[in-house]
Amino acid sequence: MKKTCVVLSSGGIDSTVSMAMAAREGYEIYSLTFSYGQRHSREIDAAIEAARSLGAVEHKIVSVDLKSLGGSALTADIDVPRDRRSDEMLDEVPPTYVPFRNTIFLSIAVAWAEVIEAESVFAGMNAVDFGGYPDCRPEYVEVFQKLVEVGTKAGATGKKIAIRTPLLKMTKEEIIRAGHELKIDFGATWSCYDPQAREGGFIPCGRCDSCILRLKGFRDAGLVDPLQYAERPDA
Amino acid sequence: MKKTCVVLSSGGIDSTVSMAMAAREGYEIYSLTFSYGQRHSREIDAAIEAARSLGAVEHKIVSVDLKSLGGSALTADIDVPRDRRSDEMLDEVPPTYVPFRNTIFLSIAVAWAEVIEAESVFAGMNAVDFGGYPDCRPEYVEVFQKLVEVGTKAGATGKKIAIRTPLLKMTKEEIIRAGHELKIDFGATWSCYDPQAREGGFIPCGRCDSCILRLKGFRDAGLVDPLQYAERPDA
Repeated sequence: MKKTCVVLSSGGIDSTVSMAMAAREGYEIYSLTFSYGQRHSREIDAAIEAARSLGAVEHKIVSVDLKSLGGSALTADIDVPRDRRSDEMLDEVPPTYVPFRNTIFLSIAVAWAEVIEAESVFAGMNAVDFGGYPDCRPEYVEVFQKLVEVGTKAGATGKKIAIRTPLLKMTKEEIIRAGHELKIDFGATWSCYDPQAREGGFIPCGRCDSCILRLKGFRDAGLVDPLQYAERPDA
Repeated sequence: MKKTCVVLSSGGIDSTVSMAMAAREGYEIYSLTFSYGQRHSREIDAAIEAARSLGAVEHKIVSVDLKSLGGSALTADIDVPRDRRSDEMLDEVPPTYVPFRNTIFLSIAVAWAEVIEAESVFAGMNAVDFGGYPDCRPEYVEVFQKLVEVGTKAGATGKKIAIRTPLLKMTKEEIIRAGHELKIDFGATWSCYDPQAREGGFIPCGRCDSCILRLKGFRDAGLVDPLQYAERPDA
């Protein structure tokens, strides 16, 4: 029997690279994307494309109404920060933090993994470039793994669902290099928190934290981001 | 400032008693119920009534599409067990187990607690009568508390959200006695997994695990369950 995994996929570079890594390891992929009231749904289209291009067996888009809880610039009417230097992003929890989001998403991924008897859950979180999110740190992942062991039927019956976070200690530069080697089509990925409407659709703003880190990652890796941006303050 | 808490409320006896306990401690209550594709929505009506009668400041019903994951008798087309003795329920994980449900629900409760800066989350889980659910055990709650500390903005900034499970080590008999002292209207609570249609609405089946434990709890407490049942195998 082929080994199977659930991959959390947001359509961004990190989750797409982690999905490609799972595919390289020979996993059969069940891709999982959340529709959680994010202000932009452009990323869901990118996730659909990632699942298709990486040969996922199934791609589920699950609705979780986090918007009704408020509290984040990604789901509520709070401004997304702009033009911050990457070192400014390191110190504090940003307004784009969605309260406890990774736990909610990982929990649902584990639930699906229990149902399909998958042996792993892959998630693309990483802590190096963006230390401001408490739920992207190695100590968080460790405790979550423990929770899966004590809190699941799989754990109670001696099976184990492994939480795999292969990018946890990689910089954005390293992730982009890895994705390049894995032949990821970066033009089909989406990172921007604040898409700008242009004829025929949306393009990334170039100024939110996520665009700035992405552009810096490509620059540091000596590669070109194929996306067209509304602005390129770095160019 | 009044202390505030989020209470997970399913409309059942346990969560309603835990809400009444929070109210007795002087908490301002934010009640949280999930619409997760359960086969019966009768319990949501009971949760609305619990929030009203116990004076909750706000009651949110949040949609989480767990039905699309399948795997449980409560959300998928799997038979709910009937006529099991309560001691038969102790040993194995039952088909009514919804994979990792408590983690998903607790995580969303913690997210809301972060947004409203609540200091506690109350949940009615208990392990004594129904050991089959891995995510109702004290060791599970302990690890989840740890996860909240490492994984939230609140935790990262030194504030703490306490996970309160006052019923964790109580039997159903003790919970029903406590609810009786707190003047809970048990006739407005709902426990049945398999409601039976009768003229003018639904009544509990009397034969699923949840009805059997509830009826046994009332019997052991020397009290009368005010609900009318479709069948009363014990009567």
